[in-house]
Amino acid sequence: MIDVDFLSYLEEKLDKVEQRMVSNADGYHPDLIAALNHLMSAGGKRIRPIITLLMGTLLGAEEEKMISLSASIELLHTATLVHDDLIDGALLRRGNPTLNSHWTPAATVLTGDYIFAQAARLAAEIGSTEAMSLFAETLSIIVNGELSQLFDRSQVPSREDYYHRIYEKTGSLFALSARAAALISPADRKYIKLAEAYGREIGKAFQIVDDVLDFTGDQARVGKPIGSDLRHGVPTLPAIYYGEQHPDDLVLLSCLEGSATEAEADALIQRINASGAIQQSLEEARHCTEIAVKSLQDFPAAREKDSLEKLGSFITDRDL
Amino acid sequence: MIDVDFLSYLEEKLDKVEQRMVSNADGYHPDLIAALNHLMSAGGKRIRPIITLLMGTLLGAEEEKMISLSASIELLHTATLVHDDLIDGALLRRGNPTLNSHWTPAATVLTGDYIFAQAARLAAEIGSTEAMSLFAETLSIIVNGELSQLFDRSQVPSREDYYHRIYEKTGSLFALSARAAALISPADRKYIKLAEAYGREIGKAFQIVDDVLDFTGDQARVGKPIGSDLRHGVPTLPAIYYGEQHPDDLVLLSCLEGSATEAEADALIQRINASGAIQQSLEEARHCTEIAVKSLQDFPAAREKDSLEKLGSFITDRDL
Repeated sequence: MIDVDFLSYLEEKLDKVEQRMVSNADGYHPDLIAALNHLMSAGGKRIRPIITLLMGTLLGAEEEKMISLSASIELLHTATLVHDDLIDGALLRRGNPTLNSHWTPAATVLTGDYIFAQAARLAAEIGSTEAMSLFAETLSIIVNGELSQLFDRSQVPSREDYYHRIYEKTGSLFALSARAAALISPADRKYIKLAEAYGREIGKAFQIVDDVLDFTGDQARVGKPIGSDLRHGVPTLPAIYYGEQHPDDLVLLSCLEGSATEAEADALIQRINASGAIQQSLEEARHCTEIAVKSLQDFPAAREKDSLEKLGSFITDRDL
Repeated sequence: MIDVDFLSYLEEKLDKVEQRMVSNADGYHPDLIAALNHLMSAGGKRIRPIITLLMGTLLGAEEEKMISLSASIELLHTATLVHDDLIDGALLRRGNPTLNSHWTPAATVLTGDYIFAQAARLAAEIGSTEAMSLFAETLSIIVNGELSQLFDRSQVPSREDYYHRIYEKTGSLFALSARAAALISPADRKYIKLAEAYGREIGKAFQIVDDVLDFTGDQARVGKPIGSDLRHGVPTLPAIYYGEQHPDDLVLLSCLEGSATEAEADALIQRINASGAIQQSLEEARHCTEIAVKSLQDFPAAREKDSLEKLGSFITDRDL
């Protein structure tokens, strides 16, 4: 789980979220339960539950509802990852073997579906049809984003296109984590929109940093080859900034079209890393976290508010 | 749609269900919308919406809620079919090309996910968290059933195993269609359990007849080769009855294990068709519809009650 001091007081609640994620699996097929345990042990930073728990506590939401909401959102996230890894043919995620690396595609599709069902079940348990609608809407946004990414390839997108895509892919679920936490709380409804803005901007920063780490990160730690997105024809912010400044570098386009050799891709990734594009991307991420923090200014003062504020710099400074 | 006189008064409401199934697709990826339209045009008998509309009207449910509920359940069904066809590698369903016959697996997985999201959105619109929970639980049951079918192959199951499997596969969604209709109505809660029993038994009869038609049906009309389940190693009720009476026929086991030649399978299917197993299966289906009709006896007298009763014999007599 998360190993930073300023969030250690969440440990107990986060454990409850983990437990709720695998609750109700009794009586299901043993191979399915094994797959769920495998996915749970791969873990991840659980940053979405952290946002829900902080925002919900800050606004006075009931703990039980926050736990179910967090578990539901994290399961929704897990289900999309399972299908995503299958689609990409990815064999590793966070350095761990993916489900599809040792299961058949059929079992992987169905396990993802099962996790969707569990996510929907927990979302229903919260007892808010408004939260349930948001949940369903967010799933639509994520899937539509994945379909667009699948169909609309082989060109350098604008930064706007990129921001739209990462909202679909990442920001929407962060926004849901914060917004639904406000929604299930008894606090004034004005906070719902502000919480949504916080989540959306934090999610945007998170994804930009993730995309930067794909260029600058340590291969063993990131769990995939450096520049893996670009090698798979997916343009991210560093590549887009680089492309704006080097419209004459035709290797970028051939990389996106999948026609570049490995040596050409290696050299391009080095050129992007040596350019100002990495720094520009990180500045954009920091700008997002500033907007996120600003959207909290009218929230009640509390330890949880401080943590939400710190989360921004935790995200932009991680592993860099 | 359905072309029987005794249900013609549902036509207008069924049209609204169809429309609601594709509502809210604006703004999504054009290829996704094309896929949805393709799936809608393949249609089907819409028997689940018919059950929801009849049961809901009989018990005084609001039309708007019934339409959303029907559309939601039918989309859930459609989503599971899309993933199911992908898993089976099926190229035709009801004689129409499946999505995966001309799309990539990736696009097919995501389209199924998108349809799940739309189903969940409509279920949330009904405004009943109890219905929402049922919806999620039913999805879990269906997916668990598909996983079991995937893992537990190559043996002749007992009739009990078979009934359990078809409950997971078909009965659970029929039960949901009837039960949730009672749930969203203002009628006494005693009807919920009775409606559930009606749906479950009608669903069981429906699946048994489907499995009989796989043996007796006209290949062009059913849209797949005769005995296709058995050829794919899936034992259904006629094969199980036959196996009980012919424990010495080893071709049955080799068929389920996938080691039978095509000529052996052809001959076995002929032997099953010539045995009493077909008739026994149909008798079981008729028995189920009798139980279904009995569970309605305390329901208010109305045209819709008559139609629910007639639906049983419509199902057991179709295409035979």
